[in-house]
Amino acid sequence: MSKIFETEVHVRFAETDMWGIVYYANYFVWFEVGRGAAFREMKVVLEDWEKNDALAVVVEANCRYKSSARYDDRIIICTTISSIQPKMMTFTYEIVNKTTGKLLATGHTKHMFVDRSGKPSRLTASLIKLISSRAGIKQH
Amino acid sequence: MSKIFETEVHVRFAETDMWGIVYYANYFVWFEVGRGAAFREMKVVLEDWEKNDALAVVVEANCRYKSSARYDDRIIICTTISSIQPKMMTFTYEIVNKTTGKLLATGHTKHMFVDRSGKPSRLTASLIKLISSRAGIKQH
Amino acid sequence: MSKIFETEVHVRFAETDMWGIVYYANYFVWFEVGRGAAFREMKVVLEDWEKNDALAVVVEANCRYKSSARYDDRIIICTTISSIQPKMMTFTYEIVNKTTGKLLATGHTKHMFVDRSGKPSRLTASLIKLISSRAGIKQH
Amino acid sequence: MSKIFETEVHVRFAETDMWGIVYYANYFVWFEVGRGAAFREMKVVLEDWEKNDALAVVVEANCRYKSSARYDDRIIICTTISSIQPKMMTFTYEIVNKTTGKLLATGHTKHMFVDRSGKPSRLTASLIKLISSRAGIKQH
Repeated sequence: MSKIFETEVHVRFAETDMWGIVYYANYFVWFEVGRGAAFREMKVVLEDWEKNDALAVVVEANCRYKSSARYDDRIIICTTISSIQPKMMTFTYEIVNKTTGKLLATGHTKHMFVDRSGKPSRLTASLIKLISSRAGIKQH
Repeated sequence: MSKIFETEVHVRFAETDMWGIVYYANYFVWFEVGRGAAFREMKVVLEDWEKNDALAVVVEANCRYKSSARYDDRIIICTTISSIQPKMMTFTYEIVNKTTGKLLATGHTKHMFVDRSGKPSRLTASLIKLISSRAGIKQH
Repeated sequence: MSKIFETEVHVRFAETDMWGIVYYANYFVWFEVGRGAAFREMKVVLEDWEKNDALAVVVEANCRYKSSARYDDRIIICTTISSIQPKMMTFTYEIVNKTTGKLLATGHTKHMFVDRSGKPSRLTASLIKLISSRAGIKQH
Repeated sequence: MSKIFETEVHVRFAETDMWGIVYYANYFVWFEVGRGAAFREMKVVLEDWEKNDALAVVVEANCRYKSSARYDDRIIICTTISSIQPKMMTFTYEIVNKTTGKLLATGHTKHMFVDRSGKPSRLTASLIKLISSRAGIKQH
């Protein structure tokens, strides 16, 4: 079973819009906060990627919005690494209101590995193995 | 044929990230800029929606990234209304580098109409007709 | 002595710019996070202001930058209410790198109270008293 | 007389907050848009600074808010280079509602020149001369 990494944010005033709810693009920022927290918990740091010359650039991002978030709401970001391969990596997310338990949004992002010059790169087997084991992903 | 509404932005420094490229969530802001420009060109103002008690809240957002945008790049946002129905409306987008003509990203957003209290609402037939005609959408 | 309210953030990737450091406008977002945390700790909620028909709109914002913040840095936001009066309120801030203890920035914001229509409003004596006592401000 | 560089933005939905007005930190983004437009008009590009190994990092930012901006408002950003010296440069800004002519905010930013490693740097005399002449600044 893939591990669910959880982290929390408080909705910022800056994140709201004139309709009184969190502006839709900000969910993608929360997804990024979720990824960052997952890597922190797995003790994989940005330098590991950079040493590997493999930056995980986003190639696809998707969010389905179920219910609104409002100023000062406590939000739980649940992040799962749903697949990791030498060229590509996928995350899935659930955004939940901590107080009510209500599911606010689900989403996923796909990332391709590129080197510093922007050309396709590959993760080393050892980094894949490390992440897989720490993220609870079965390798095929 | 659906009309393509075009508008232009210059990449802001604020929109870049530490990898030197535009941060992925900002493409959704550009999509919103595209929608705004489309409505402006169709002469449909926010007040029209509000009078109709039908706010178009986002229920799905998707972006596929093909190539990066960088500081000061001139960007063309091409917006199309691909469908409009009493309860739902869909936009598709193409983000293009104006100078090189390169396609940077494609995406779509789905919007549901809700009233001020957040309950599902419906667009009036007259507003659908108006938008359809100005956006070049064939009605079925 | 004015109480120092402390809260913590992790630098988000979204907050960095192409120079690899936190984009300067985001410090003002952190100031807002600091104000929010101060009010939360004082148990003064947004509804208290709204009931009082006194929204604290910003009339001046200032930041002096001493040193840069980078992705994933742990940041402490120290917020102090330096003055509160019926028409006006001032906050001062210190932004500190939690790991190194380095002072990254100092700043202040001045807020004027306005009612829903945007006209100048006044805080009630009881709300001033409450905030003053919880924020450790001596009243003159 | 210092030249006033003018550029225009439309208020984005993303820039509004739950009080229906433009969130205060976004004025600093507009200041940056103003600086970018000024440099574009003077034909000074980012590469000129980078070649000079002099990046203009912000050391102080200030904004005084007079009146609110709202969604879709047309905004004129007026930017002036008020001083340029080997180690430091200052910009002043006026944010004006294009339709009403109302002054919404004034501000300034101070920038120090640093090299890639973050150490203080100096602008070359030729770059200062070029900018001064194009920005209408009298040299002392």
